[in-house]
Amino acid sequence: MADTTKTQEEPKKEMTLLEVVKEVDGFPYERDDPEHFKQYMSKFHAFKINGCDHVLGYMPTEIMKKWDWEAEEHWKIDNETRTLTLLCDKDAKPEHRTELLHTTLRAAHEKKIFDVIKGNAWRDESYPIYHPVTKKLLASIERAAACLFGLPTWGIHMTAYYRDKKTREPILWIATRSEDKPTFPLMLDNTVAGGMATNQGPFECMLKESMEEAKFGPEVAKNAECGGCLTYIYVRDERAGGEKGLLQPEHEYIYDLELDEKTIPGVDEEHGEVQGFEAMNIEKVIRELRAGKFKPNCASVVIDFLMRHNQIKPDEESDYAEISARLHRRLGYPLS
Amino acid sequence: MADTTKTQEEPKKEMTLLEVVKEVDGFPYERDDPEHFKQYMSKFHAFKINGCDHVLGYMPTEIMKKWDWEAEEHWKIDNETRTLTLLCDKDAKPEHRTELLHTTLRAAHEKKIFDVIKGNAWRDESYPIYHPVTKKLLASIERAAACLFGLPTWGIHMTAYYRDKKTREPILWIATRSEDKPTFPLMLDNTVAGGMATNQGPFECMLKESMEEAKFGPEVAKNAECGGCLTYIYVRDERAGGEKGLLQPEHEYIYDLELDEKTIPGVDEEHGEVQGFEAMNIEKVIRELRAGKFKPNCASVVIDFLMRHNQIKPDEESDYAEISARLHRRLGYPLS
Repeated sequence: MADTTKTQEEPKKEMTLLEVVKEVDGFPYERDDPEHFKQYMSKFHAFKINGCDHVLGYMPTEIMKKWDWEAEEHWKIDNETRTLTLLCDKDAKPEHRTELLHTTLRAAHEKKIFDVIKGNAWRDESYPIYHPVTKKLLASIERAAACLFGLPTWGIHMTAYYRDKKTREPILWIATRSEDKPTFPLMLDNTVAGGMATNQGPFECMLKESMEEAKFGPEVAKNAECGGCLTYIYVRDERAGGEKGLLQPEHEYIYDLELDEKTIPGVDEEHGEVQGFEAMNIEKVIRELRAGKFKPNCASVVIDFLMRHNQIKPDEESDYAEISARLHRRLGYPLS
Repeated sequence: MADTTKTQEEPKKEMTLLEVVKEVDGFPYERDDPEHFKQYMSKFHAFKINGCDHVLGYMPTEIMKKWDWEAEEHWKIDNETRTLTLLCDKDAKPEHRTELLHTTLRAAHEKKIFDVIKGNAWRDESYPIYHPVTKKLLASIERAAACLFGLPTWGIHMTAYYRDKKTREPILWIATRSEDKPTFPLMLDNTVAGGMATNQGPFECMLKESMEEAKFGPEVAKNAECGGCLTYIYVRDERAGGEKGLLQPEHEYIYDLELDEKTIPGVDEEHGEVQGFEAMNIEKVIRELRAGKFKPNCASVVIDFLMRHNQIKPDEESDYAEISARLHRRLGYPLS
């Protein structure tokens, strides 16, 4: 395979693997500096839905102000408690709440208010919003708007690999994102990744994305094995496109797919998400990780793969336990 | 192999896997209930060493009061800030701090003050105390006393297994702890486990414990592969023996050892830690987990093994992400 990474921007100076992981888990930990955390959070409004006492997400106040929420009667802003609440009957059905959200967001989309949902950034896919305690579905929201509200999302990432015949070392199929992707163009990516829509299960999502992104049919992809779940809170920066400082708490179910040497991922020219795949050995994978060439959450998926497969070892990596904890952050906002 | 679990106490009612994990990660999360957390922590004194600004551990105040610390001039108790401090020169060498700790603990041992270090509970093994930020060694402490101070510890757990010839399902070698163990007698255990002494590395520790606990020589044990690191804060209960309510923040490096069907762990009659091993299939392992038959941290190791090996799947386990996060808690106390 051609080396598809040459076209990228100049490399940063070499990072430690913990620094790489901090790029995807960038939301501060209150315990590390309570004063800084308080100040940081003072720049957000909490997002709530009437009928649920708990905070569901957070929106940067400056970004919230770009839209006149209270022009519609189903929104209420409380600047004392810094809360943005979707008003609806306490016992409203999820479909009704979904409709209220959709009406507002569609209007903001048409008026091009928020970068993350304007134009073709609008995905027309539904993501679930769950009650943090009962886990029941409260509503669904346009996928591109989840980060606007700092809502937790669910997805899958899959690493396809084969083993070197002599050394048995895993060789990873790494994708390079297309040049014209609005988010993280030309950065390195996992073999397959995708978000889980409302009512979609992880395995089903993995099968669907495997076909769309790597041309692996179900007869191949069904052999993928789940190896865990990564959780982190990403704070969007300029590479993500759109507004900066939006929060993305993500759950990523992780699949490994061991292949023989002859089964090769295919580029789907129509979808155009990926410009190519490269079979990368561990040494090169680690070099690219440290050089910051991977999309941040994909870097974390690779690091987790290497840790689970004994390719990053605790005898050699002094930050091993801290990296492991930050790849599995306990998500959820304060409960009331 | 004989079913070695029959002699155990009556089973509890079936637990969910998340409930099983909460037994080992029992220390509260501040975010879940800040008021309860504050009240909980008000019953502890922080442990510090002069020369390091950060809290190193916590001791329940009631238990601390069993000993007259200030009878020796190298201790200071501040009841305002609820702090127990080892006094020594700011730039004291680790050996000097180790000696001061040892003098006090040895005296308390001889006077039979604390259950966790009296009699043959004293292990005569050194555990490291690291600076939480610089990670430099501050001192070493008698292994059995680490939990008295709520100090983080490091260890290894190893699961040996073979694959069923037909189904390829992993069959796990599960140990039953000896009846006369002071801690968790007759409970189920991993194939091999052990604590890492000062200056011992994870792989070295795994090799040593494999020989001592399962009679796996280095030619077998060297094939073990690291698959991650579990981190949690265990709150000692009656099953652990000794004082209740002591804190044990643990880092456990996790090894998997795939064997052929003929390589069988051996019971070391001399050490007498284990009364037998059983080759358990996944169905039985899960039944024993839910029945509370495993020592709590060993249950977590098994759950992590099953998650990494696609035997517990996110499509079937609704608490998957929460279990994963609680198996990889970010350790460390507030930094100043």
